[in-house]
Amino acid sequence: MSSDFEVPPESPFALLSAQEKRAWFAYMKLQLRLRYEMNRQLQADNAISLADFDVLVALTSEAGGQMSVSALSTRIGWERSRTSHHAKRMAARELVEMSRSEQDRRVTEVSLTEHGWSTLRDASPGHIGLVRSLFFEDLDTDELDTLSNTIEKIYDTVIKNGTLPRPVDRP
Amino acid sequence: MSSDFEVPPESPFALLSAQEKRAWFAYMKLQLRLRYEMNRQLQADNAISLADFDVLVALTSEAGGQMSVSALSTRIGWERSRTSHHAKRMAARELVEMSRSEQDRRVTEVSLTEHGWSTLRDASPGHIGLVRSLFFEDLDTDELDTLSNTIEKIYDTVIKNGTLPRPVDRP
Repeated sequence: MSSDFEVPPESPFALLSAQEKRAWFAYMKLQLRLRYEMNRQLQADNAISLADFDVLVALTSEAGGQMSVSALSTRIGWERSRTSHHAKRMAARELVEMSRSEQDRRVTEVSLTEHGWSTLRDASPGHIGLVRSLFFEDLDTDELDTLSNTIEKIYDTVIKNGTLPRPVDRP
Repeated sequence: MSSDFEVPPESPFALLSAQEKRAWFAYMKLQLRLRYEMNRQLQADNAISLADFDVLVALTSEAGGQMSVSALSTRIGWERSRTSHHAKRMAARELVEMSRSEQDRRVTEVSLTEHGWSTLRDASPGHIGLVRSLFFEDLDTDELDTLSNTIEKIYDTVIKNGTLPRPVDRP
């Protein structure tokens, strides 16, 4: 065991086995650094945060770039109140519009504006270039397929044992 | 290719290969759901957020539970201003204390309070139980080792090509 995975006895992670600790620390450290780097690049080059980007991308997955606040929350894994609050701040910057649903006036819809679409189009090449250089650069195709298989298996466990509604693409 | 990985031509991810898309979507979906579930459980059972928990855990890694705002930021991958702002709110709830360094008065130190330690101790079994049930439950030991190898390899790429200082445990 390398000293990477030694934790003080007060740490919550002292409860994990050595093998679990290694995997969990690797995973947590990777996702914290990746989020930091992606946020930094988007802020510097496109004046949007990673959270803004996550919302814009989620909206492109629906025809017309429009989703209810609830559907958007499920898609990006945020609490409804956070999504609603964040979408209002994006609306003030004209990246999205918020409106009452015509079918059900209790439902708030969020939709991409022309400025939202163009911001996303402008940000895409730089973001994807960063993802390639940070995540994919040193992996071969076998490593990549094995990684996808394992992560999809863990995702199924999260859906099975978690509290969020099942995603629409995993019925 | 399953329909999971089809993206509209407007999506930034249309720029990735099919294999990259599969891995990236799996990874992003997993981390968004995991963060949501971990935050929900900590809020419900221990009245702290996942961000609070990340700070408390980071502080346990230093003797005496104390780090400078800068070192803490590097450790958890946040911008310095976010760490400082968040630590102030945690100090108002008596989870941490903030003070000027005696060696260098320009440096702000963050340290765990007795209440911070006891909150972390109380939260640990529930958090670790959740991590086991969401992440580890369906993986065998071979899958786990292979996953750790691949994630550590990607982490090395992030350090090599990213902007953050090298972590102290990866000189």
